[in-house]
Amino acid sequence: MRIVVLAGGIGGARFLRGLKSAVPEADITVIGNTGDDIHLFGLKVCPDLDTVMYTLGGGIHEEQGWGRSGETFAVKEELAAYGVGPEWFGLGDRDFATHIVRTQMISAGYPLSAVTEALCERWRPGVRLLPMSDDRVETHVLIDDPDADGGRKAVHFQEYWVRLRAQVPAHAVVPVGAEQAKPAPGVLEAIADADVILFPPSNPVVSVGTVLAVPGIREAVAGAAAPVVGLSPIVGAAPVRGMADKVLAAVGVESTAGAVARHYGADLLDGWLVDTVDADETAGVEAAGIRCRAVPLMMTDIEATARMAAEALALAEEVRA
Amino acid sequence: MRIVVLAGGIGGARFLRGLKSAVPEADITVIGNTGDDIHLFGLKVCPDLDTVMYTLGGGIHEEQGWGRSGETFAVKEELAAYGVGPEWFGLGDRDFATHIVRTQMISAGYPLSAVTEALCERWRPGVRLLPMSDDRVETHVLIDDPDADGGRKAVHFQEYWVRLRAQVPAHAVVPVGAEQAKPAPGVLEAIADADVILFPPSNPVVSVGTVLAVPGIREAVAGAAAPVVGLSPIVGAAPVRGMADKVLAAVGVESTAGAVARHYGADLLDGWLVDTVDADETAGVEAAGIRCRAVPLMMTDIEATARMAAEALALAEEVRA
Repeated sequence: MRIVVLAGGIGGARFLRGLKSAVPEADITVIGNTGDDIHLFGLKVCPDLDTVMYTLGGGIHEEQGWGRSGETFAVKEELAAYGVGPEWFGLGDRDFATHIVRTQMISAGYPLSAVTEALCERWRPGVRLLPMSDDRVETHVLIDDPDADGGRKAVHFQEYWVRLRAQVPAHAVVPVGAEQAKPAPGVLEAIADADVILFPPSNPVVSVGTVLAVPGIREAVAGAAAPVVGLSPIVGAAPVRGMADKVLAAVGVESTAGAVARHYGADLLDGWLVDTVDADETAGVEAAGIRCRAVPLMMTDIEATARMAAEALALAEEVRA
Repeated sequence: MRIVVLAGGIGGARFLRGLKSAVPEADITVIGNTGDDIHLFGLKVCPDLDTVMYTLGGGIHEEQGWGRSGETFAVKEELAAYGVGPEWFGLGDRDFATHIVRTQMISAGYPLSAVTEALCERWRPGVRLLPMSDDRVETHVLIDDPDADGGRKAVHFQEYWVRLRAQVPAHAVVPVGAEQAKPAPGVLEAIADADVILFPPSNPVVSVGTVLAVPGIREAVAGAAAPVVGLSPIVGAAPVRGMADKVLAAVGVESTAGAVARHYGADLLDGWLVDTVDADETAGVEAAGIRCRAVPLMMTDIEATARMAAEALALAEEVRA
């Protein structure tokens, strides 16, 4: 079974671990969000790709969900001693090595997809990890500018998410560069050849939404022969984790499991899973032309996540039939 | 008193610490060798400049003589896990931060002299540290090529020095790029305005020799109004530390305190200090037109080094008179 998953960071990575556990023999291609990539200290950092790679490769900081286990922070402390920031982005020493290797390869002319493949030779994540694009796409968030009366300014997604902790209103989310970006090699082919396409409970705006913003990807998913099934990142009107509700507001979408499904729409989604606490949302989703089931959606451990993945695959079979 | 010192790495740095102790009020400009700079992992590493900066700034690994105290090696271990080398160059986590800051500034368009000044804002070495040039100069060493019968190949100085530990014959030492290099801003002015110019017991070929290979610097030193006094890096026919004898052979110079003085020559040197064990060398040096004294030259501690520096300054006064 060939499965394609459009993934963001922590939610996507944890879902993938459950999916691999549910169907160990499946051929899984992950199309990873690169809109939250950022250049820090002259190095190219790809937080979502790395979270998937570290999580599936056994190197993740489990409690935190991102970054490396057993991490130390000598480099960051020294950079701060030089007065070089930002200090709000927590790069550890082990993590730095990944960004050093990536930056060196990119400087030598390798596209991000080739670099990601090379990094995965070490981590062996058990999936084929593709960046959505080899071109630079950078998600910016439009916020109020306290220095300009009534004015607004765009900040990098990481600044909004990590430094500001999404505590200020987001007026718009713009994947800068997406319009000019091309899908990375293999992305459209994987979608076309897939038996099932899954949207994990990743952020529908800044993770899955950014992947879909690369011209050609949305069209490929919408036109794919395979059933497309998603899992709600919103449970009981709140994000399962993270701050998805903040950026949903920016795109005018209510923070409910049903509203997210309707935001994706029936042209993309064939099936949608909501949590059992959101069972009353199923009728509205089905009315929008999307098959919907209510099942437990909390990724409390790998077993629970594997059951979620199995439910998603079962729903895919149901809509296929 | 304005003192200019042409310095390499460990020997130069330790001498400078003694000099500062001997004349705390002096205005010292250090013209640092950059011929042993190397790009590693996409980062620009300046071993000699950093050794001076760390030593005078209190961050040096005292026993080792180079690198940072309290160093850890998480980044290097991770790079090795990615299969990315070289492994023979021991960059620690703290040291990495210096190279990351430097590389980021150079990528942003700052010349090495401005970067060095910025790094020194943190370390406050108590001297003005100038790279010999903002242009790229890379010392290469010609060695036998075991893969080509009777053939030879050029390797980066660091590969010869650190990886091969100077254990293979060096047939030539070539400061690649030196002919096209210009002295960094302030270098020629400092030499012209100096009251004393000192050659510390640094390597006469790959440290002081490389500085002198930048067009304009040798001429400025030779033509300076100030007396020029050097200290022998060879004591009792052996290098005080390091492997200076290996590269002296490559330029056809005997490993004796007197031969090194004659290699520099009376057009550069006004005075020369040899160790007391080499007192029999003084006559030959003086015959070459260079005032010579025999004094203890082992930099066993800061006090002993300060006495050496004071002897060098006394000899400068003697030749000036």
